[in-house]
Amino acid sequence: MKARVFVTLKPSVFDPQGRAIVEALHSLGYGQANDVRQGKYFVLDLNVASAAEAEKMAKEISDRVLANPVIESFTVEIDGAAK
Amino acid sequence: MKARVFVTLKPSVFDPQGRAIVEALHSLGYGQANDVRQGKYFVLDLNVASAAEAEKMAKEISDRVLANPVIESFTVEIDGAAK
Repeated sequence: MKARVFVTLKPSVFDPQGRAIVEALHSLGYGQANDVRQGKYFVLDLNVASAAEAEKMAKEISDRVLANPVIESFTVEIDGAAK
Repeated sequence: MKARVFVTLKPSVFDPQGRAIVEALHSLGYGQANDVRQGKYFVLDLNVASAAEAEKMAKEISDRVLANPVIESFTVEIDGAAK
């Protein structure tokens, strides 16, 4: 079962990488780029039987290992289906 | 218009970060984790009128700035709708 995890900085946290990308885009002529937020993306291949189990495990793993809950939030999707 | 961009290493490229995460998960008791691939995730806020235009621009930006086409591939989704 594949789980996709997206980890992003919380909206209130300043994202200097994203700002740098916006500035690079403006200097390349993409003036329409208002804002960019950078995050991390993980594809977990889990050996579990059900989507519910995969979701539970992916959320636990995200909370414990992949994200820093103080400044980051995460979203989990199982097998391409938005949860 | 929001575009979500996922950049991942091509399947043939070895992903040492992902391997390190798998080993960390195993040592934490998540033996069901077969494989992990780590990538980058970007949320672009583009000031364009149509979804088609947003998709075109996001793909161009991904190819030129966000991904290294030699070793990485990318996927673009507009406003939560898979393209």
